[in-house]
Amino acid sequence: MEPAIKYQLIKTEKHTGARLGEVITPHGTFQTPMFMPVGTQAAMKGALSPEELDEMGSQVVLANTYHLWLQPGPDLVAEAGGLHQFMNWPKGILTDSGGFQVFSLAKHRKLTEAGVHFRNELNGDKLFLSPEKAINIQNKLGPDIMMSLDECPPFFESYDYVKHSVERTSRWAERGLKAHAHPDYQGLFGIVQGAGYADLRRQSAHDLVSLDFPGYSIGGLSVGESKSEMNRILELTTPLLPTNKPRYLMGVGTADSLIDGVIRGVDMFDCVLPTRIARRGTCMTSHGRLVVRNAAYAHDFRPIDSECDCYTCRHYTRAYLRHLFKADEDLGRRLTSYHNLYFLHHLMKRVRQAILDDNLLDLRAEVFEKYGYNAEHPKNF
Amino acid sequence: MEPAIKYQLIKTEKHTGARLGEVITPHGTFQTPMFMPVGTQAAMKGALSPEELDEMGSQVVLANTYHLWLQPGPDLVAEAGGLHQFMNWPKGILTDSGGFQVFSLAKHRKLTEAGVHFRNELNGDKLFLSPEKAINIQNKLGPDIMMSLDECPPFFESYDYVKHSVERTSRWAERGLKAHAHPDYQGLFGIVQGAGYADLRRQSAHDLVSLDFPGYSIGGLSVGESKSEMNRILELTTPLLPTNKPRYLMGVGTADSLIDGVIRGVDMFDCVLPTRIARRGTCMTSHGRLVVRNAAYAHDFRPIDSECDCYTCRHYTRAYLRHLFKADEDLGRRLTSYHNLYFLHHLMKRVRQAILDDNLLDLRAEVFEKYGYNAEHPKNF
Ligand SMILES: [Zn+2]
Ligand SMILES: [Zn+2]
Repeated sequence: MEPAIKYQLIKTEKHTGARLGEVITPHGTFQTPMFMPVGTQAAMKGALSPEELDEMGSQVVLANTYHLWLQPGPDLVAEAGGLHQFMNWPKGILTDSGGFQVFSLAKHRKLTEAGVHFRNELNGDKLFLSPEKAINIQNKLGPDIMMSLDECPPFFESYDYVKHSVERTSRWAERGLKAHAHPDYQGLFGIVQGAGYADLRRQSAHDLVSLDFPGYSIGGLSVGESKSEMNRILELTTPLLPTNKPRYLMGVGTADSLIDGVIRGVDMFDCVLPTRIARRGTCMTSHGRLVVRNAAYAHDFRPIDSECDCYTCRHYTRAYLRHLFKADEDLGRRLTSYHNLYFLHHLMKRVRQAILDDNLLDLRAEVFEKYGYNAEHPKNF
Repeated sequence: MEPAIKYQLIKTEKHTGARLGEVITPHGTFQTPMFMPVGTQAAMKGALSPEELDEMGSQVVLANTYHLWLQPGPDLVAEAGGLHQFMNWPKGILTDSGGFQVFSLAKHRKLTEAGVHFRNELNGDKLFLSPEKAINIQNKLGPDIMMSLDECPPFFESYDYVKHSVERTSRWAERGLKAHAHPDYQGLFGIVQGAGYADLRRQSAHDLVSLDFPGYSIGGLSVGESKSEMNRILELTTPLLPTNKPRYLMGVGTADSLIDGVIRGVDMFDCVLPTRIARRGTCMTSHGRLVVRNAAYAHDFRPIDSECDCYTCRHYTRAYLRHLFKADEDLGRRLTSYHNLYFLHHLMKRVRQAILDDNLLDLRAEVFEKYGYNAEHPKNF
């Protein structure tokens, strides 16, 4: 059987080894490195439409298994014909395993070898998420890319705890693989964990690679550790993963981390950050973050970012956006959300071109300098 | 001097006298009868973009002088180049006088011949709205069509009160006309008042017509009186207005009232209703209102209205929309707002065709029967 998800390496960048490639899915072939926007509840925050996501260059979007499990439920999504049809998105969809939300949001949680017991936050019902259940839900939701259930321990958890956790995550990955009903049209990724412990990261990667997933996620990063810690872990993890499979770094969405992740061999990223900060009026720009709701922009008739050619920047001024935020108009959140996602998609386009041109480090230097990451106390990290 | 706003009568319907025409403005020539969506704070609720308004057939949109006066202020809008440029809407814009909001929203109100004293609801500042000030603000905002300051007394107010009010509104109209700085590119409409009193409506219409405004509004209706009361007042008012000027019925936006208003010679309508109810999950359909957030639609994979070919109905199911409302996603409000505005624009398109075809009463009968207006206790009025 052909795996549902394949990866085609096109070129490695001369100085860094960064990978230009394609992820081949049942809903299209997509260029990597890529950033994937998050539509938690099968809808993009900020009221963005699927057509707008497409227009700005989105290829694969995320939805959250945990949230969709609670509502509207996987059976309803299956009845609707799966997530693609339900949410009117014909390109790639990736779902997480639900584990991260259960471990970070759910109350009355009890972790066992079998799975996790917890309470439904919406109605108090008892729920149980096992590796098999996580797969079963995702089989019903119907994304192109699924995640096996993992535990994501805190970065600074004890060695013993993380070791037990990693071993359980490997056993869960194996159980998930067995439970997977549609390997022909849904690709299941294993998630490498191990917090900051090099040998546990190695053990996790080794376990998962031996199970031959069609792709690998790197989890447990961007959870409070420093950027250099994250880079250190990436540097030791990606070389352990097969070159003919995609690598997905979970939960990372700042300009610097995207570039630094690509340099260390990562192909796919996702994060709620761009839309979350956009809803509060904070914009990513080529010169760093800009809080457009601030009074400083009341009479500023320039676009958010003069170097951006997105819909928002072509048609609206900072003064108008500031007015929309002050007046609590939904349109403001839509326009800043559009801009922030466009900004990251555009950055990844430049990253792909830089890999082709073998000048990714030059691009990094330029972006870091302009964005302000080189400042003594960079506020935008 | 040529007036900024002109009206071209194209045809009157054979059986009703309903008018097919064009309103000619500095930002384009628009077909009447028309429905105008309301973008209170220089933005459409439900996060709809100007491009979407254009796509669904909007020609003129409203903005509210009162709200824009309080924030961001007329000077800022003028500095931005006027409302068209500020909000990225190249077609027609109409602003009200601010009077309706001052009389319905503002606290500590004191009405004098000079104008209205009240408190800014946002910061408690003392404010004063005079006929001249209302014009001055609108001159700065820069809409194509402006309204002169009026008082809108309750429909069942005493005869004496309404008589004094109408006479003051006429004096205010004259003062506004004198204060108007840009009659060459902004058309000022007078507002006929008079509550339910036939002779006061006549007096008001007579006063205003003698001032030769380029268009006339009919105010003080759809404020709690019955449909038949409203129709009675329209029937006696529109014949008093010149046939070569547009007539605008303020604050009306249900399917039945639009048709009944057109039959009585009205050319333009506006109302917050379609977007306001959309934000709560209530949709206008050819078969009456549908509350898509209701549990009844959880597994309903049909569009909101099978007879509607709007963006929302072409791509999304009731089940998905219901999920978006339950999950409190902005996208749900955007999609239902789009549908409701499209529904009214599409209705007006059919009304214009029916005038051309001399079968407006047939269209009325069909729409009323299907919508449910003929039911014994119609719930959709
Ligand atoms: Zn932009
Ligand atoms: Zn529709």
